[in-house]
Amino acid sequence: MSASTPPRVRTVEWDDPGAGARAGASMAGLDYLKAIIRGAVPAAPLARVLGFVLAEVESGRAVFEIEPMEFHYNPIGSVHGGVACTLLDSAMGCAVHTTLPAGTGYTTAELKVNLVRAITTATGLLRAEGKVIHRGGRIATAEGHLRDREGRLYAHGTTTCLILAHASGKTPPAEGVRDS
Amino acid sequence: MSASTPPRVRTVEWDDPGAGARAGASMAGLDYLKAIIRGAVPAAPLARVLGFVLAEVESGRAVFEIEPMEFHYNPIGSVHGGVACTLLDSAMGCAVHTTLPAGTGYTTAELKVNLVRAITTATGLLRAEGKVIHRGGRIATAEGHLRDREGRLYAHGTTTCLILAHASGKTPPAEGVRDS
Amino acid sequence: MSASTPPRVRTVEWDDPGAGARAGASMAGLDYLKAIIRGAVPAAPLARVLGFVLAEVESGRAVFEIEPMEFHYNPIGSVHGGVACTLLDSAMGCAVHTTLPAGTGYTTAELKVNLVRAITTATGLLRAEGKVIHRGGRIATAEGHLRDREGRLYAHGTTTCLILAHASGKTPPAEGVRDS
Amino acid sequence: MSASTPPRVRTVEWDDPGAGARAGASMAGLDYLKAIIRGAVPAAPLARVLGFVLAEVESGRAVFEIEPMEFHYNPIGSVHGGVACTLLDSAMGCAVHTTLPAGTGYTTAELKVNLVRAITTATGLLRAEGKVIHRGGRIATAEGHLRDREGRLYAHGTTTCLILAHASGKTPPAEGVRDS
Repeated sequence: MSASTPPRVRTVEWDDPGAGARAGASMAGLDYLKAIIRGAVPAAPLARVLGFVLAEVESGRAVFEIEPMEFHYNPIGSVHGGVACTLLDSAMGCAVHTTLPAGTGYTTAELKVNLVRAITTATGLLRAEGKVIHRGGRIATAEGHLRDREGRLYAHGTTTCLILAHASGKTPPAEGVRDS
Repeated sequence: MSASTPPRVRTVEWDDPGAGARAGASMAGLDYLKAIIRGAVPAAPLARVLGFVLAEVESGRAVFEIEPMEFHYNPIGSVHGGVACTLLDSAMGCAVHTTLPAGTGYTTAELKVNLVRAITTATGLLRAEGKVIHRGGRIATAEGHLRDREGRLYAHGTTTCLILAHASGKTPPAEGVRDS
Repeated sequence: MSASTPPRVRTVEWDDPGAGARAGASMAGLDYLKAIIRGAVPAAPLARVLGFVLAEVESGRAVFEIEPMEFHYNPIGSVHGGVACTLLDSAMGCAVHTTLPAGTGYTTAELKVNLVRAITTATGLLRAEGKVIHRGGRIATAEGHLRDREGRLYAHGTTTCLILAHASGKTPPAEGVRDS
Repeated sequence: MSASTPPRVRTVEWDDPGAGARAGASMAGLDYLKAIIRGAVPAAPLARVLGFVLAEVESGRAVFEIEPMEFHYNPIGSVHGGVACTLLDSAMGCAVHTTLPAGTGYTTAELKVNLVRAITTATGLLRAEGKVIHRGGRIATAEGHLRDREGRLYAHGTTTCLILAHASGKTPPAEGVRDS
């Protein structure tokens, strides 16, 4: 409209997700996630688009961070519930991923999220922490909590992941696998 | 700009979400959502960022559409589960919203999503349809299904929403309300 | 025994569940469930204890019935939510079971249930109908609805089941299998 | 059939659940649950039928115990998933109840349960521990874990409860209230 740049605009770039997926197929989950943290493997495109980052990872646990922004909003005046779901899905799924040896993968069968407090741009940095609850041979479950710097809870959830054994010596399909 | 411009870039603009939220506070849910479809009220910023649109709405039902793109990907080679959650959350929440008279609002207490088939850029247009299952005085529940043009199912879910009565004659807080 | 016998007493008998489980291991799921309906294979002991029965079964669908009684009550004045969960778990799990050929089994990984209306002894006969939503090679999902004779909804849910291939030529472990 | 008593029979007695519900309406939740533990208020009829007991209660936490028996079995060779759901529903709901002052009540809007390990008669005593996660003004959420004496996990879940304010000076309806 005017000479001033519109403030409500966002431009993001991302990397080929296929490259990361192929690299991940030959690595233990924990090694792969550590490589993402140090930048040796690209982060997920969606993480760039929404502005969340993998901050910490250890065996059975993963933490993502996000700064809630206006572009995360729903049409009823707060951050869209899908953002909390996305962060918790990432944190819980990656917590499971940390327990997987090279040559295996996982897919999220389901997740359930409780949204217990509204998130706004006034909320400040949020951390989504995922922790494995049960790690079986075929199924793993995890829980996740989304909290602000003071530890106040905004959302929490649980997930059920299916553990997949890749065919030995083969890379998994580039397009990903989910039960079909 | 030139041949060397990286192709993996996305720029989006959005509108002030507060304006829409304030408009919505004085409208019946169905009227508000119809106004979003015809462009009289701005869509959610997150809808612009992720590229999904409200396509259909009627009493007890809402449909969103999305074209899966590479920027929706997770780091393991398919569309991030959070995208399906976001679409289903929108579809189920708006289905509940269609049942609300002016002067009332809602908040999503929880949602559960099953991810039953991998989504990739080859999937093509997806439609998330939300339908109200139960509409009580304080609680409403809804279900949602995410399908492609051929009707193949990719994800499905259910949600529990809390119905809120705004103080009579007052606009709801601009920042939204969730149980706290 | 006499006029002073306390009326709040219930006596139930049941059959060896191992016999039914062994019979089921060599039968297609639909055949097995039909055998339960016609009494050729014993019903679950828990069904006897709580008084629910398998009423209908066809490919992808199963219906259980229960008459809510005072002995189903919780301490806060209505039928315990666990009764609705049990009926829906049975209906959804058996709906999945109807799709399984001989030599395979399943286990319920998770279920989620919404309780939308109080159940009391005044409610009358309830039917829990389970239907398969997605039947993949490793995972199946189903939905369930608990309704009275007039079709009023009391509870609804979804489930995620893991499909198990029994070792060929072997009976499954008598004690059942769940991911461990 | 013969002179020997059939071993697969169970007889249970229970108390009028209305008496307990009326007593509970005028008591703080924690006081009411403590009264059940010491026997001053009758336990739920369903607890008698299934053989589970409230073992511990404190603010924000409740523990139930059960000894898995053959009469808890499903038709596929292990304890019915509904038993785990019932125990977790009780533990999570009562954990929420401990936080309620006299004159308020609650109803369970939904629960989700993961079943991660088969339960059999060889499992031995199980404890279902419920803990409040979030206690808001209208909604409370809780989590629950079902473990054996060695701490091995068999099932876990979360719940969403709606908090109800009874009309002051009135007893709540004897038949219980759920959103309708």
